[in-house]
Amino acid sequence: MSETRDNGPVHWTVETQTARLFDDSRPLVTSSGGVLHEVDVAFETYGELNSDRSNAVYICHALTGDAHAAGYHAGASRPGWWDNLIGPGKPVDTDRWFVVASNLLGGCSGTTGPSSTNPATGKPYGLDFPLLSVSDFVAVHRRLGEHLGIETWAAAVGGSLGGMQVLDWALSHPQDLRNAVIVAASSRLTAQNIAFSAVGRHAIMRDSQFHDGRFHEHGTSPDRGLSVARMMAHITYLSEEAFAEKFGRQAQSRELTRNFGVDFAVESYLEYQGQRFLSRFDALSYLYLSRAMDYFDVFADPDALALVTEDPVNFLVMSFDSDWRYSTKDSRRIVRHLEGARLPTTFREIPSPWGHDSFLLEIEPYHATIRAFLDRAWERR
Amino acid sequence: MSETRDNGPVHWTVETQTARLFDDSRPLVTSSGGVLHEVDVAFETYGELNSDRSNAVYICHALTGDAHAAGYHAGASRPGWWDNLIGPGKPVDTDRWFVVASNLLGGCSGTTGPSSTNPATGKPYGLDFPLLSVSDFVAVHRRLGEHLGIETWAAAVGGSLGGMQVLDWALSHPQDLRNAVIVAASSRLTAQNIAFSAVGRHAIMRDSQFHDGRFHEHGTSPDRGLSVARMMAHITYLSEEAFAEKFGRQAQSRELTRNFGVDFAVESYLEYQGQRFLSRFDALSYLYLSRAMDYFDVFADPDALALVTEDPVNFLVMSFDSDWRYSTKDSRRIVRHLEGARLPTTFREIPSPWGHDSFLLEIEPYHATIRAFLDRAWERR
Repeated sequence: MSETRDNGPVHWTVETQTARLFDDSRPLVTSSGGVLHEVDVAFETYGELNSDRSNAVYICHALTGDAHAAGYHAGASRPGWWDNLIGPGKPVDTDRWFVVASNLLGGCSGTTGPSSTNPATGKPYGLDFPLLSVSDFVAVHRRLGEHLGIETWAAAVGGSLGGMQVLDWALSHPQDLRNAVIVAASSRLTAQNIAFSAVGRHAIMRDSQFHDGRFHEHGTSPDRGLSVARMMAHITYLSEEAFAEKFGRQAQSRELTRNFGVDFAVESYLEYQGQRFLSRFDALSYLYLSRAMDYFDVFADPDALALVTEDPVNFLVMSFDSDWRYSTKDSRRIVRHLEGARLPTTFREIPSPWGHDSFLLEIEPYHATIRAFLDRAWERR
Repeated sequence: MSETRDNGPVHWTVETQTARLFDDSRPLVTSSGGVLHEVDVAFETYGELNSDRSNAVYICHALTGDAHAAGYHAGASRPGWWDNLIGPGKPVDTDRWFVVASNLLGGCSGTTGPSSTNPATGKPYGLDFPLLSVSDFVAVHRRLGEHLGIETWAAAVGGSLGGMQVLDWALSHPQDLRNAVIVAASSRLTAQNIAFSAVGRHAIMRDSQFHDGRFHEHGTSPDRGLSVARMMAHITYLSEEAFAEKFGRQAQSRELTRNFGVDFAVESYLEYQGQRFLSRFDALSYLYLSRAMDYFDVFADPDALALVTEDPVNFLVMSFDSDWRYSTKDSRRIVRHLEGARLPTTFREIPSPWGHDSFLLEIEPYHATIRAFLDRAWERR
């Protein structure tokens, strides 16, 4: 990470690295029983690891995130997806913490996923890639820690699917983590959540270009289905109030022209989101990662809270009051379970009109709460 | 309408009729300026028109309804879509009222729509069909009244898009109606509403089988897109609580099998709804009717409430507390405008866990309210 300053704001230049974390000698056996003989993981690091390796923080990304959480890639005009939270002097302060962010197993931004080449066939895995679960993501995070020489993480931080990883990790391997920050997540999806995911996957898998997941070999991709899935998901990431505030019934041009094209501003927004997504995301990764979310139900295991350590993980659970995709009710369920097991848990519901997307935004009380929690984590080291 | 009684419940046998309401001598000029030289309208009637023609009630259907609102078609095992509300002794009591239900202009169940044959070309209209608005639907309803010899309707009743028609009709031609029942509707869609509709239409129009709306000529139809649109819409017709209550995280079979198929019960429900819809609905009608909803914004016209009659329409406006598609807030906006114009307006928010779908269900306080309102309408005749 290097700092450049040329008349503009400070731009931290960062690079994505890749490491082969599983190979023939130590393959990854997934929770579904699948075996992956080659797993490469893309990751970035920000800040410096201290000598006693006590200042490492893991960032877990959401459904469509990647390893580029903060800073700027060389020549890029836009920073990583959580750059407002992570950096020098920011709530996850890289002057203090050594921050690691990785791309999820099954993803499409440098880490091995269903569109990677299957070494057994020389072709993309497609649907031969094993079904994944949140605990598989955690297994890969732990292996990355091993690779980096980090046994204990001062904190793991994640929003949405990222928060699910943090929760799973803190419960399954509490000795790994000192602090866990779980934002806008749930211990299990509701039927409505699953319904939205199911329709998105249906759109992808019934796209005439899906070819049973072998679309790469046909030189095509189910773009129509993937953009529909993304557009629909975007509706659920904002609150109704946020849509009203941002777009209302405004015309995209000067006035409504009344036709079947893009006429309302909100239509233009969704079309743009759907199209832009195609250049950065893979339909198979969308299937695998969203399906892992559907099946996540961490407290269904009666032993989920059995691993109590002498020095328990400290939890910070946060929700946003206008988030209807992963609501305060979902966060409160997590808190109820954690407190039932006498685990030290702080809960905050943050007022924000922006719905689920709030976890990606710079909302003062939200960032202040994470900053304060990590300040205490620093003192407790 | 004839009554049969064979060991089972009373089955009223009804038939759909069709009338040509617009032709070369009197074509329909739509609000968009389009001209339709042949408009056939499918309709059903229940009960008997009395001698002074003062007992007629018009039923306006929602996005995917049809003229078959009540009773049973010969040999059918399922009744019309609003049979729990309309019939002998029911809230819309056909022992008292002469009830007329028609299929909307632009629809696909007997009334002329975009998949009908364009007499000018001998081929289906496709996207050459003129864009429709709610006021066009009302124009056709009025012409059907003329055809049936009904000048004044004792009431018009509708839910969702049906309620929008009733509202538009009562404001634009108050002399036509004595009473207006507007259920789970809105005077204008929110940005979120439009967003859902836009994604549904996107799925249809980007389906590889859409062929710019000429799919009939290609011997195909955009079934994938239409089923995605329907599945997504179904998510919005139920409340989150209703999904939790009906399905929760239950497996479709005995237990979750963990794959990309239909595994959760909620997935099975949506797949079924999506597939079943294809046999009864047309993709072009879905585009035209949903787009009419997007553009509806009846109070945007500053003169919307200018037509005050000496004997004003009595309004009943109803919402359901768990309906997030057309919420109580939307109904209250209608009420605010009507009361602002000193129009006699009754408003009821009905407690129901079932979301927008509630307007189709037999919910006691809902039906009791309509019954009481129509009782007063009967007394006021």
